Order: sequence, then structure tokens, then C-alpha cells
Amino acid sequence: MTAFVQKSLGRWRSQRSVHHLAFGHFEQVESELEIAPVAIDAPAVVALCAAWGVPPATAIAPFAMKWEGRSDWDGGQEVLAGECLLVPVPAQGKLLRDRGYAETLPAVGTFGFAPDGTFVLTTPYERAAAEERIWFVTDDVRYRVSSIRTSSGQGVVTASFSTEIRRLA
Amino acid sequence: MTAFVQKSLGRWRSQRSVHHLAFGHFEQVESELEIAPVAIDAPAVVALCAAWGVPPATAIAPFAMKWEGRSDWDGGQEVLAGECLLVPVPAQGKLLRDRGYAETLPAVGTFGFAPDGTFVLTTPYERAAAEERIWFVTDDVRYRVSSIRTSSGQGVVTASFSTEIRRLA
Repeated sequence: MTAFVQKSLGRWRSQRSVHHLAFGHFEQVESELEIAPVAIDAPAVVALCAAWGVPPATAIAPFAMKWEGRSDWDGGQEVLAGECLLVPVPAQGKLLRDRGYAETLPAVGTFGFAPDGTFVLTTPYERAAAEERIWFVTDDVRYRVSSIRTSSGQGVVTASFSTEIRRLA
Repeated sequence: MTAFVQKSLGRWRSQRSVHHLAFGHFEQVESELEIAPVAIDAPAVVALCAAWGVPPATAIAPFAMKWEGRSDWDGGQEVLAGECLLVPVPAQGKLLRDRGYAETLPAVGTFGFAPDGTFVLTTPYERAAAEERIWFVTDDVRYRVSSIRTSSGQGVVTASFSTEIRRLA
């Protein structure tokens, strides 16, 4: 996990396509991402561990993710921006975050790595579950495939695909 | 491979998003796919095996794929339609086809399955190489992620994501 976080640090230009499967609708999001390391003893890290009852000594490589982008959803140019703190706890296979993607509430997800190195994260929300698969195609190109399923588990409501290109400047 | 082909048979509604990475351009394609079994001794199968010097007895589960769709590329509503014959030869890890996706020439790709069941196909073309990863999210939802790389190998030129929903009617 430390190596994966390490490779992810930096600024990324993201193109994201969202497929709303029930209506066959396409949504396009362009954004800038910034992933930066956070000190293991930062107060926000300690507080997030405490909130989930996790001993801070079991956390590693916390990082902050910041995004700013535009969606073409609903005809308009909706501006999306936000940031969250993520704290991996490998011994429990947990990823804590102070804010979710699908809902703006704190969330805890379960992560692991597929044998081919794909990072797989599953996050249950109150009315849905999100699964994310992230892998590096080259050192400077990352793919991210996300699915939002109904919390009952079967149907896929929304699928999305992001290509993230490292900003080298 | 036989099981994978078996699960893939039928009619599918596809939403495909193409990311042209250099210009950050999005392309949207909506299409209908039909995947149908072909007899192992069909003349077209025997001919395709002969063309690639493959003993027909090593081929399994040949299938035909037919598609018809619309792309929003170039502002217009370009109509895409085509069909191809695919012949898996598992002993050699080869997938023969009488027509490629990226170029309309016969092609032979190398396939395998990742430990999590993802079908991975790599096809070299004259000026590019295509990698496709296909997996089932449910029995009736298939994801397909494709990358077109420069033939020199490093850069990713185009990435695409398809969500394929089984037509149950």
C-alpha cells in the first residue's frame, strides 16, 4: 500500500466518463487531482483514527486528495470541488476517509490488491455500495473503474471510468 | 474460455466512452452487440485457422460478433456497423479474428485470464497495440476497458470503457 500511495502522489489531469446505466446516459467530467502525503501524526489523522476506533500506530501513509472539475451533467457546467483525507490501515484492510465520494459523509472502505496489482476498494454507504478498481497502465497513467451498486447488492446503477494523466510540469 | 464465451452469448446494449488522451477529448458510442456461437466446422472457421496455420482441432467455441452503433465523434452521428468472426485457440493462447477493431485487417491476439477471472487480450497491429480487459460485474453486466498504445510500447493514445448490459427480451 505504501508503494501504491507513493506512485499516486502528484498532480493529475483526469477525464471521467460516467455511465448512468438505467437511462443509458453519459456524463463527462474533467478535473484536476492533487494527491499529497500527510504526516502520520497530523491532528486530522489522529482524529480520524480515533473516530473509527483504530490505533493510530496501525495506520500508514495517509494522504490528502483534492479535486476541482467540471461536469456536463444536466446540460450545465456544474463545478465540482472537494478534498478528503484518506488513512490506510493495512492490518485491517481498511481505508478511512473523512468524506466519501458517493456521499459526503465519513466512510470506511475495505481494500486489497488483486494479484495483478490492481487496487480494489469496496465502500458500503447507507443506500448503496461503491467498488473502485485502480491500476497503473504506465507510471504516469492511472485507470480507475468505479461501480455504484444498490445496497441490496445485485444491480449496478452507475459505472464510471477515469483516465488520470500525471502532470509533469 | 468456453465458459467465458458461453456467458457472453446474446444481445447486449453497449455504452462506450473513448478518451483521446492527448487532446483530452471525449467520444461517446452507443451500440447494440450480438454475440452468437458458430459451428466449429463452419467453412469460415476452417479457413481462418488455415490462414493462421492453426490446426482446426485446437480451436474451440468460435463465435461471431456483430455491432451497430452511433458515435458522436466529429460532431456528427457517425454510424458504425460491422461484424467479425473470432476463433479461440487456448493451447496457444491465441484469439484469431478475420477483422480487427482498431484496423479492419485480420488480426491475431494473445489472450489469458487474470486470477480474478478478467479476460485479457493483447493484439499487435502494424502501428499500434491494443489491450482489452473484459470482466463480468454480474451475469448481465460486462465491463470492457481497452487501451491503444503506440507500437513502441510506452504511450497510451486512446483508452475506452464500455458497459454492456444484456438485452433480456
